[in-house]
Amino acid sequence: MELGSPGAAPGGVSVSAVLPAGGSGERLGGATPKQFCAVQGRPLVSYAVRAMERISWISDVIVVVSPENTETMKTIIEKYGHKKVTVVKGGITRHRSIFNGLKVFAENEFSSHLLQKPEVVIIHDAVRPFVEEDIVAKVVMAAKEHGAAGAIRPLVSTVIASAADGCLDHSLERARYRASEMPQAFLFDTIYEAYQQCTDYDLDYGTECLHLVLKYCKTNAKLVEGTADLWKVTYKRDLYAADSIIKDNLSQQVCVITNVKETLAQVGFLLPESLKSQIKVHLDISENNSFSIGMEDLTMIKKFARETKKKNILVYGLLIQCKDPLLLQETVNSAAALIMALIKDRNPELIGQLLVA
Amino acid sequence: MELGSPGAAPGGVSVSAVLPAGGSGERLGGATPKQFCAVQGRPLVSYAVRAMERISWISDVIVVVSPENTETMKTIIEKYGHKKVTVVKGGITRHRSIFNGLKVFAENEFSSHLLQKPEVVIIHDAVRPFVEEDIVAKVVMAAKEHGAAGAIRPLVSTVIASAADGCLDHSLERARYRASEMPQAFLFDTIYEAYQQCTDYDLDYGTECLHLVLKYCKTNAKLVEGTADLWKVTYKRDLYAADSIIKDNLSQQVCVITNVKETLAQVGFLLPESLKSQIKVHLDISENNSFSIGMEDLTMIKKFARETKKKNILVYGLLIQCKDPLLLQETVNSAAALIMALIKDRNPELIGQLLVA
Repeated sequence: MELGSPGAAPGGVSVSAVLPAGGSGERLGGATPKQFCAVQGRPLVSYAVRAMERISWISDVIVVVSPENTETMKTIIEKYGHKKVTVVKGGITRHRSIFNGLKVFAENEFSSHLLQKPEVVIIHDAVRPFVEEDIVAKVVMAAKEHGAAGAIRPLVSTVIASAADGCLDHSLERARYRASEMPQAFLFDTIYEAYQQCTDYDLDYGTECLHLVLKYCKTNAKLVEGTADLWKVTYKRDLYAADSIIKDNLSQQVCVITNVKETLAQVGFLLPESLKSQIKVHLDISENNSFSIGMEDLTMIKKFARETKKKNILVYGLLIQCKDPLLLQETVNSAAALIMALIKDRNPELIGQLLVA
Repeated sequence: MELGSPGAAPGGVSVSAVLPAGGSGERLGGATPKQFCAVQGRPLVSYAVRAMERISWISDVIVVVSPENTETMKTIIEKYGHKKVTVVKGGITRHRSIFNGLKVFAENEFSSHLLQKPEVVIIHDAVRPFVEEDIVAKVVMAAKEHGAAGAIRPLVSTVIASAADGCLDHSLERARYRASEMPQAFLFDTIYEAYQQCTDYDLDYGTECLHLVLKYCKTNAKLVEGTADLWKVTYKRDLYAADSIIKDNLSQQVCVITNVKETLAQVGFLLPESLKSQIKVHLDISENNSFSIGMEDLTMIKKFARETKKKNILVYGLLIQCKDPLLLQETVNSAAALIMALIKDRNPELIGQLLVA
C-alpha cells in the first residue's frame, strides 16, 4: 500500500512494529542488559529484529533503547545488515519507552522525518527471539477486528496472593488465568490515545499495554493462544535455552573431505546412512593417498580453518580409516558420531583440528 | 532423633520428603515423561532425589511414580546408588499421587513396613533438580511455625483473566501476586488431614497443596522467597537450560599431559594463567620427546580414552608446540581456549582425539 510495505498484510492493513529494548536485565545477574547478550555470537535483540524484518508486510521496525545504548544498537544494525530499523531513545520505564517508539509515527520530536503511520502497530520484546510470522499475523488480524490483541500462554505455576504478614491469602484457580505474552498488536490510534491519556503513575509503574487500552479506550483485547517459543529471556538459564534452540535451528549441512579413494563408494553410501539423513554429506577425494601427518600438515589445516571461519564456515579435519573392510561400518559410525558432535556443539575453538574416526 | 535421621534438622523436627513424579510431561512434546529425560546422561528425577538425599536431616524420600514407571524408577535408584528412597505407586492426578506418598507414613496399604511418620513433610517436584539445602531449611522452619510453607517467586509475565468471548476481562497487578513454586513443607498431621477431608473434585482438578491446607485446615501457609534456580522443567527449552547449568556445575578439574620437557616450567606457569584459574592444571612430561604421529599412536589414545571414560574421566590429547619461544604465549592461549572448549561442551564423542594448540 505504502512505500516500504511490499508484502500483503493480513486484512490489507499497513503494519509496523515497536520493540522496547531499554531494560537493564537485572534479573539476569550480569552487567550486560539481556537484549545485548550474545547468543551464538549475535546479540539477542538482533534475532528479534530479524524475526520482524523477515515478515514482508511489516514496514518499519522501531527499536527503543536507553540513551547510553544507542551507539551499541546502531553498531548491531550495521553489523547484521538490518534494513527496516529506526533507533529511538527510550524513557526510564517500559511504558515510556513504548510511547517514545509510537511517537515516531505521530510527532516530529524523535526522528528527522516522520515515518508513515501504520493502521496496526505490533509491540514485541527485544528478548523474545523466536516469534513466527504465523502468530504475528493472527495477532494483527485480531487487532484489526477488536482494536487490540495479545498472545497468551497457560500459566506454568499456580499464582497466589499474599497477605500483609507474608502468608498465603488465596490461590487463583489456574485454569481461569493466563500469562500475557508478546507479540501484542493495536490499532495505532487506539494505543496512541491510551498513552496520551494515561497518568504518570501508569507510565511509571504499569507494564501491560492491554491494560492501558482497556482502561482508557474501553477496548477489550482479543487473546490469542501463542506457542511455547514466545517465552521471554529473563534469567541466565533462558540464555542457555536460547543458545541451544538457535544451534538446533542452524543449518545442518556439512562437507566431508576424506582421503579414502579405494572405498569411497562404500563410505559415500554408509556415511549418510549413519547420519540418518539429518545432514547432507559431500565426499571428495584428497590428492594425498599415503598417510603421514607432520606438524606442518596439522598447522596447514588450522590456518585453512581460520580463513574459512571468517566466512562463517567451520572446518574440521576428519580421518576415516578403512584398511580393514570388516571394521568399515564401525569406523563410519564413529565418523558420523564425531560429525554430529561437532555440529551439535559448534564450538569455534575446535576448528582446524584433525579428528580420527 | 529416629533411626535413619542422622543430621540435626532445623528446629529439631523430624523431616521426610515426598516427590511426585507421576506426570506424563505432555508439554515437553516427547514420548518420555520429563522426569525421566536424561540430562548429561542422568534422568532428571535422579538430580531431584540426590538434592534431597544430600540433606542429612531428611530421613526418607518417597518418590511417587505411575505404575508403569515403577521398574524404571527402581532401576534409576540402583544405578545411581540412591539410599533413602521408597518408590510408591501414584494415582491418576498430582494430588492423588501426593496423597499416596503421604500414606506410606500413616497406613499399611502402600509399603511392606510403615515408615516413621515425620513431624514435617517436604513436598518437592521431581522436575526441579536444583533445590539447595538453604531454601529447604527455611521452608521447613516456617512450616514448623505456621503449619505450612512454600517457596514463591516473582511473576515473569503479567497474569490476565479472560472473559467468555476470549477477550481480556482484567489484568492482575503484578506486584501483588507471586508464582507458587516448590519446595513446600507441612506439619505432617495438617497436610494429611487436608487430604483426608478434601473432595474428589479437589483430588482430580486441584494441584496446589497450600490451597488444600487453607481450605480444610484454615492454615495460612508462610510464603518464602525462593531463588531463580527453583524453576520447574516444563518445556524442551528447560531441558536445554538444565543441561547447561549441570555442565557449568560439574568439576572443572583437568589433567594436561604434554611432551614439552624443555619449556615445561614456562608452560606450567603460562597455561594456568591463560585458564584464569578457572580450572586446575596438572602438567606431566611424556616420555616421548620426538614428534611423530602415526595411526597407531592416534588409535592408542582413543583406546585409552574409551577405557577411562568408563570411570567418567574424559581424556583428550593436546599437543602444545613450543619450538618458537616467541610464539609460546600464543600457543598456550590457544591450548587454554581448547581446554575451556572441551570442558564447556563435555562432548563424549570427542574423547581420545589428539588436538593441536
